[in-house]
Amino acid sequence: MIRLPCEEEVLERIKPLKEEYDHIRGVADALIATVNDSGIARGMVVGSVARDTWVRGDRDLDIFMLFPPSLPRVELERQGLGLARDIGTQYGAEMREKYAEHPYINMRINGLDVDLVPCYAVERATGIQSAVDRTPFHTRYVRERIGSFIDDVLLLKQFSKAGGVYGSDQMTEGFAGYLCELLVLYYRGFSGVIRAAAEWRPTTTIDIEDHATKVFHDPLVVIDPVDPARNVAASLSLSRMFEFVELARGYSAAPGAVYFSPPAPVILDRNAFAARLEERGTRLYAITLETPHTIPDIVVPQLRKSTAAIADMLTRYGFVMNRSACEMQDEHCMLLFELLVDSLPPVKRHMGPPVWNRFNAEKFLAIYPENTYSGPYIDDGRYFVEILRKHTHVRELLGSESPLKVALGKHVKQSMSTSRTLEEGPECWSEEFAPFLTFFLTRESPLVRIRRTDAIRK
Amino acid sequence: MIRLPCEEEVLERIKPLKEEYDHIRGVADALIATVNDSGIARGMVVGSVARDTWVRGDRDLDIFMLFPPSLPRVELERQGLGLARDIGTQYGAEMREKYAEHPYINMRINGLDVDLVPCYAVERATGIQSAVDRTPFHTRYVRERIGSFIDDVLLLKQFSKAGGVYGSDQMTEGFAGYLCELLVLYYRGFSGVIRAAAEWRPTTTIDIEDHATKVFHDPLVVIDPVDPARNVAASLSLSRMFEFVELARGYSAAPGAVYFSPPAPVILDRNAFAARLEERGTRLYAITLETPHTIPDIVVPQLRKSTAAIADMLTRYGFVMNRSACEMQDEHCMLLFELLVDSLPPVKRHMGPPVWNRFNAEKFLAIYPENTYSGPYIDDGRYFVEILRKHTHVRELLGSESPLKVALGKHVKQSMSTSRTLEEGPECWSEEFAPFLTFFLTRESPLVRIRRTDAIRK
Repeated sequence: MIRLPCEEEVLERIKPLKEEYDHIRGVADALIATVNDSGIARGMVVGSVARDTWVRGDRDLDIFMLFPPSLPRVELERQGLGLARDIGTQYGAEMREKYAEHPYINMRINGLDVDLVPCYAVERATGIQSAVDRTPFHTRYVRERIGSFIDDVLLLKQFSKAGGVYGSDQMTEGFAGYLCELLVLYYRGFSGVIRAAAEWRPTTTIDIEDHATKVFHDPLVVIDPVDPARNVAASLSLSRMFEFVELARGYSAAPGAVYFSPPAPVILDRNAFAARLEERGTRLYAITLETPHTIPDIVVPQLRKSTAAIADMLTRYGFVMNRSACEMQDEHCMLLFELLVDSLPPVKRHMGPPVWNRFNAEKFLAIYPENTYSGPYIDDGRYFVEILRKHTHVRELLGSESPLKVALGKHVKQSMSTSRTLEEGPECWSEEFAPFLTFFLTRESPLVRIRRTDAIRK
Repeated sequence: MIRLPCEEEVLERIKPLKEEYDHIRGVADALIATVNDSGIARGMVVGSVARDTWVRGDRDLDIFMLFPPSLPRVELERQGLGLARDIGTQYGAEMREKYAEHPYINMRINGLDVDLVPCYAVERATGIQSAVDRTPFHTRYVRERIGSFIDDVLLLKQFSKAGGVYGSDQMTEGFAGYLCELLVLYYRGFSGVIRAAAEWRPTTTIDIEDHATKVFHDPLVVIDPVDPARNVAASLSLSRMFEFVELARGYSAAPGAVYFSPPAPVILDRNAFAARLEERGTRLYAITLETPHTIPDIVVPQLRKSTAAIADMLTRYGFVMNRSACEMQDEHCMLLFELLVDSLPPVKRHMGPPVWNRFNAEKFLAIYPENTYSGPYIDDGRYFVEILRKHTHVRELLGSESPLKVALGKHVKQSMSTSRTLEEGPECWSEEFAPFLTFFLTRESPLVRIRRTDAIRK
């Protein structure tokens, strides 16, 4: 395998050190032994530690506790969480109960961030009872094949992280670790992935085991080698996919270590933000609400849906949008709307029925006889009337009850009805949302950022 | 034939007086005799005078001079106009040469507005060489059948005139006299027309002779009894058609003399106009130009086309239209644009190619590397960039060369490039365009106007 000098350099920097490796392995072995000793479950290391595809500095250790599939689900949770808590207590660790599809226990042990996750030891990946049951199969599949490609996986993960496209959570909508591993296996190494990705198109499909049993319409389709009816890249968005594609093209054209370095955070302070906004001349509105108390992967899609629904409402009322976006922080969420036009004259043209629909036409005439700016009049055979506009300003519309009536999603709606605040222009800025607002105003693709910062450095 | 009292009343008022009738017949007979005496053409009265379907006070007399079809066209014009001028000279009349499809001579004789029109005496209407050759056939067709329906035609013409839908010129786009006559014949009287029209739909088709040889897609289709391939209602717009429909419904529900009285003209003066505009809160812009020196039926469609093209341009540049309209006066024409938004911030979002189109994507990146508000960035797999808007104000855009570059039509373009002025807000008002501007701001359908004025009177 031929590596470019910059890739060798990066590997030097990101490969785990021997002492890190020994430490994490030691903790893992001890935890596995403890789980096995319980006699009720079998311990298994999963995730990147199990596959040796973790990057220097990573502190995540995932231990699965495999229970017999005959155990009822409530018992799985009771015994699983009980065993995890016993282990935590043994280590004197601070513990938190968390949720994915199932509850699990997160704890800090000897400087590591450890998840203890109960699951069923099913025979085949297609026989799973819940998504977590699939993870051991992924681990086995990759561990058996990844041998000579470990460095390639490290490079691809670092490349994706630095480009801002790594992570399959709902906020990122990027590349999962397992997806990176499969891409490396399929394309036989990091440079194979780079070469291929430069030519990806929407619905590009990869089926390593050639066993797909279902058709997917996602941007990228990577059939799970352990489950022919699952797309590993289902949560990858079109935007993240093509940000990766442009990074791959940029790297092909001029490879460099800069592609593996996450950007230095630039955050606009209140004054710089106000100045930028002034320059753009647009009207910014921010709805802030308390972050709903549920898992982020539920909140984030609701935030996106709510933002789109409110943006649609503003457009429907005649205001002119430039862009909108949303962000979830620990304490608060923000729905951001940038408008080209936030104020409209009082007159509003309203379309009525075609005159040849006699019933509706006569009903329309009866409704609008008076107090109109003009009309009812006939244009191209339809009635029109000009009436008083209900909301002449975005401020007034966003401050009304109307935003609560569009499709918000349950948790966001609940939080918005009790904790909504509305800010305008430079007042949208806050410490908490400064990075988000900065990203919004200075948005650029990963490749554009890399080329710009690289040009500055030179 | 049973007439409503209000119809009897109206007929009393609009039927030509005996002395009018004798006078106009006298002039007509004398002119016919003069034409016949020339030995080169045969005279014929056409139009409403020939059919006895004219309304009291009408002063129009159309005399056709029928030449042998073997005469070359240049000779037709030379001899036809020569004969007409001789006749005019005989009467000591002031003459003007005018154009429809062919030139003709207009003159004032004994208080009448007389057109002397040369045409070919063809054997059949389908063998015509120009549209005017068809007119004698229309006259003969109607004269032979209209006998008992003359009063009905008078009522229908007066009803259409008062409703503002009479006249087949390009500005009105309404009902021609011949069309009114055919409708009365087909529906057996005025009340038959009213009853039927209330239920008209687009593409309603009437074919009295049941001989159509062509399919038409006009709002109303009335096959010419003397030409199976012609729609008599071709120049009727959807708007005028359905204004007539709503008048018919209104009259059916509550007949009254008010439907036969043209509205008293209400014209906003400069101050009232400014006050109305202030109330609406919209931004009004008027482009004025010198009226091109060609026939109105050529200028008006060009004005309409130009207005639509400029309105489209404003929308394309991001400004928000409410309505637009145009008007032709003797001296000047006006293109009027009413905007909800005439000013936009400097930032403009520009859509680029999809990233999977590698050639275009890389070209796009090369074009927009610097001086952007944000981007290039990727959204849903496409490039976007935010750049400086070229025109941030309608005033500036309408004052630039851009309006001259859209599809204006030859004569309007010529006139606009030499005589264009741009006015804004209350400054759009002028004595010349006060009726047009008043109509624009206080637009209402004929029925709404009738009901409103009738309610005021009661």
